[in-house]
Amino acid sequence: MEQERKFTAFEEVQAHEVYGLKPELVRAIVEALDEGRDDDVRTLAVPLHYSDAADLIERLTPEQRRKLVDLLHPDFEPEILTELDEAVRDEVIEHLGFANFATMIGELDSDDAVYIVDQLEPDEQARVLAALSAEDRAIVEQGLAFPEYSAGRLMQRELVAVPSYWTIGETIDHLREGRAVPEEFYDVYVVDPRHRPVGHVRLAKLLRSKRPVRLRDIVESDVQPIPVTTDQEEVAFLFRQHNLVSAPVVDAAGRLIGTITVDDVVDVIDEEAADDMLRLAGVTETDLYRAVIDTTRARSRWLLVNIGTAFFVSAVIGLFQATLQQVVALAVLMPIVASMGGNAGTQTLAVAVRALAMKELTPTNALRVIGKEALVGLSNGLIFAVPSGLAAWLWFNDPIIGLVIGAAMIINLFVAGLAGTLVPLTLERMGVDPAVASSVFLTTLTDSIGFFAFLGLATLFLL
Amino acid sequence: MEQERKFTAFEEVQAHEVYGLKPELVRAIVEALDEGRDDDVRTLAVPLHYSDAADLIERLTPEQRRKLVDLLHPDFEPEILTELDEAVRDEVIEHLGFANFATMIGELDSDDAVYIVDQLEPDEQARVLAALSAEDRAIVEQGLAFPEYSAGRLMQRELVAVPSYWTIGETIDHLREGRAVPEEFYDVYVVDPRHRPVGHVRLAKLLRSKRPVRLRDIVESDVQPIPVTTDQEEVAFLFRQHNLVSAPVVDAAGRLIGTITVDDVVDVIDEEAADDMLRLAGVTETDLYRAVIDTTRARSRWLLVNIGTAFFVSAVIGLFQATLQQVVALAVLMPIVASMGGNAGTQTLAVAVRALAMKELTPTNALRVIGKEALVGLSNGLIFAVPSGLAAWLWFNDPIIGLVIGAAMIINLFVAGLAGTLVPLTLERMGVDPAVASSVFLTTLTDSIGFFAFLGLATLFLL
Repeated sequence: MEQERKFTAFEEVQAHEVYGLKPELVRAIVEALDEGRDDDVRTLAVPLHYSDAADLIERLTPEQRRKLVDLLHPDFEPEILTELDEAVRDEVIEHLGFANFATMIGELDSDDAVYIVDQLEPDEQARVLAALSAEDRAIVEQGLAFPEYSAGRLMQRELVAVPSYWTIGETIDHLREGRAVPEEFYDVYVVDPRHRPVGHVRLAKLLRSKRPVRLRDIVESDVQPIPVTTDQEEVAFLFRQHNLVSAPVVDAAGRLIGTITVDDVVDVIDEEAADDMLRLAGVTETDLYRAVIDTTRARSRWLLVNIGTAFFVSAVIGLFQATLQQVVALAVLMPIVASMGGNAGTQTLAVAVRALAMKELTPTNALRVIGKEALVGLSNGLIFAVPSGLAAWLWFNDPIIGLVIGAAMIINLFVAGLAGTLVPLTLERMGVDPAVASSVFLTTLTDSIGFFAFLGLATLFLL
Repeated sequence: MEQERKFTAFEEVQAHEVYGLKPELVRAIVEALDEGRDDDVRTLAVPLHYSDAADLIERLTPEQRRKLVDLLHPDFEPEILTELDEAVRDEVIEHLGFANFATMIGELDSDDAVYIVDQLEPDEQARVLAALSAEDRAIVEQGLAFPEYSAGRLMQRELVAVPSYWTIGETIDHLREGRAVPEEFYDVYVVDPRHRPVGHVRLAKLLRSKRPVRLRDIVESDVQPIPVTTDQEEVAFLFRQHNLVSAPVVDAAGRLIGTITVDDVVDVIDEEAADDMLRLAGVTETDLYRAVIDTTRARSRWLLVNIGTAFFVSAVIGLFQATLQQVVALAVLMPIVASMGGNAGTQTLAVAVRALAMKELTPTNALRVIGKEALVGLSNGLIFAVPSGLAAWLWFNDPIIGLVIGAAMIINLFVAGLAGTLVPLTLERMGVDPAVASSVFLTTLTDSIGFFAFLGLATLFLL
C-alpha cells in the first residue's frame, strides 16, 4: 500500500495528460505565494523535479518569481537554471545574486556549465570564470573553445576508458575503486595505447560476461567515433538513425576526449524539428517568455519582408486595373485562386522541408519528387477547377468567368506543386536554410501567378 | 593505422553532412543495379546499417527496389522493415513473399513485430499470426491488444527484475547465468513479492557497488512507473522532461510488465514535433513515398476545406461590390491587409501550438499569453500602418486611401494576435488537435476581417 501511494494512481495517469507540472499545483503555489504562506510554498515546491521547478518559475509573474526563488534558495537546484528559458533565466540569475550564481555553476556538470556561461554577456562571463576553481575554469574554458552547436558542446568529459588487454574482472574492480569513475555511464570505452577508441563494451554485456574474459574478445566497434567539431544536427541524425544511447567523441588526432549520451541529444532532436515549424511560420525562436517589445521587434522582421512582397503582388494586380474596372466580379473572386495555390504549395513545402531535414530528399531522388509533386498539384488543380468554376458561373451568371477561374486554378496549383519542391531544394543547394526563406518565396509566387493567371485570362476572354 | 581506416576520416566528417547514406554510394549502387553487376551491389549494400539500407531502398524506383531486395535476400535484415516508410514496406513485403516475411517477423524484437503486424490488412495479419510460433504469436497478440500509440506498444517485454533482498553479488551471478536476461538493458528493476516495481538500480551504480551490498540499500525510486495504457505523447514528454534513459511499465494492478527505453521514444519525440509542422501546413503525414493518386486524395481533403472558406471570404468581399466598382484602387490594395494579417497570425499560431505541445501554455498563463500576443499584434499593426499608408497614398495619390489601409492594418494585426492564441487554446480545450484545425480557422478570420475592415472603412470614408 505504501508503495502505491508514492506514485500517481493508475487511473489518474490513464485518464489523460498527467505528466509535467499540474495546473492545480501551480494554482496552489501561486495562492500560497500571494498570501505569504511561505512554509506551504516550500512544502509544495521543494520536492519538484528540477525540470518541473523550472516550468513553475516560467509560469509565474516576475514578482512571484522573485519571491519563489528567495523561498527555494537553500534548496535551489543548479540544474533548474539549465531548464529555464533564456529570458527568464537572466531574471533569476540577477535575483540570485552573483555569488550564489557562481557557486551553482561550479556544481553543474561540465556541459551544462558551458551551456549557461556561453549565454552570458562577455563581462559576466569573465566574472563567473574568475569565481570558479582553477579546474572547473579550465574545463569550462575548453568547452567554450569548441564551436557553438558542435559535438564538443554536447559531450561530457567524464567517461570510462580502459585498455583492451584488461579482463572483465579487472574492469569491474577498477569501477568499484571508483577513482575518476563518473556517476552515470552506459559504455566502457576500450582504447589503444594512444588513447584512440578501439570500440565499446555495453554495460549489459559487461555484466553478462565472466570475470576472466578479456575486453578485446567482446568489444564492439559498430559505433563510429564523432569528431568534436561535428555539427549537433549531424550528431542528432546519427543517434536517431542508428538508435544510439551513447557515442565516443574524438579530437583531430583521433583521441577519445568525451562522450555524448542520448539524453543530451533528445533536446537537440526535439528542437530541430520544432524550429523548422517555427521558421516556416516566420518565427526565429520560441518567444513565449520574451517581453512584448522584444517579441514585436523579432516578429516585425519577417512582416517587413512580407509587406514588400505584398506590395509586389498588388503591383501585379495593378496591371489589370482596366479589367477590374469593367468586371467587378473578378475582384470578388480573385483571392480564391491565390489562396488555393498558397495552401497547396505550403503542403508540398512542409513535406519537402521535413524530407530535407531527414535526408530523405537528396540529389538521387529530387527529380522524381519534383515530378510527383507537380503531378499532385496538377491533379488537385483539375479536381478543384470543376466545383470552383461551377460556383463562379452560378454566382455571377457567366460561364466564361467559370472557365477562367477553373483554368487559373489548374495553372496555379501546378505551379504550387512545382515551386513547393523547387524553392526549398534551390535554397538548400545555395546553403540557405530552406525552412527560413521558402515560405516567403513560395507564397509570393503563388499569389502573383494566381492573380496574373486569373486576371490575365479574364482580360483575354471576358472583355 | 588500421583502426583509423575503419572510420570516416576526421576532416571529411568535419567538413559537413556526412552521416547517413551518401549520395555517391546511392549512385554507385544504382549504376551497379542497372548494369546487372550483382556482386558489386552486394559488396556495397550488404554492410550497410539497417537504417541506411532502408533509406537506400526508399530512394530507388520500384523496379530497382525489387532487384535489390532479391540480391540482399539471404542477408536481408528484418530490422530494415521497421525503418521503411509504410508505402515502400508494403511493396517490399509483397516482393519478399509471405513465407520469408513471416520468418522475419519471428526474428524481430516483440515491439517491432507488433508495430509491423499492426499495419497489415486484417487478412494478412491473421495469416502472419498463424505462421508464428505459439510463443511469438502470444506476445504479438498481447501487444496488439494494447491501444494504438500507448506505452504498451512502445515497451519491450524482456527486462531484468530481481527482489530487493538480493545482494549485488547475487544479482551479477544471475546476470552471468544469462537465463531470461535480455541482450540489452540499462536498469535492473527491483520488485516486491507481488512483482510491483519498488525502484531501479542503474547498471553504472551496480558496477560501482561492492558484492555484499544489498539492492535495497542502493535502489532509487525517482522514476515513476508508466501505466501500460498511457499515450505515447505523454511517455515522450516524461522522458524528455526528466531526461530518462529507461522507465518501467506497469499493468492496472501495478505489476511490472515491460520497459520502455529512450531509443524507442526518440522516434516518437521527433515525429510529434514534425507532425505538428505538417498538420499546420495541412498535411496529415509524410507522404514522400506515396503514389501520386494517394497523395492527391490525402491532400485534397484539406484543399476542400480551404475552397469552402475561400468562397466565404469572397462573399465578404462581395458585400462591397458597389464600393469596388467606384474605386478600383481598393481591389489592387486589398490583398495587402489580408496577407499581413495571415502572416502575423501564423507567427503567433506556431508559437502557441509549440507551447501547447510542450505544456508551456496552460490555464495558469493563458490569459497573460493572449494579452501579450494581442499587444504584439497591435504594436506591429501600428508599425506597419505607417509605411503601407504612405505607400498607398503616394501610389494612388489619395491620403484617405492611406489612412484607410493603415487603420485596417492595425485592426487586422490586433485580431491576428488575439486569434493566433485564442483559436488553438479553444480547440485544445474542445479536445481537437490545435495543429490540425487552427490554420484554417485563423486564415479565414484574418482574411475576412482584413477585407471587411479595409473595404468597410473605405466605404465609410472614401465614397
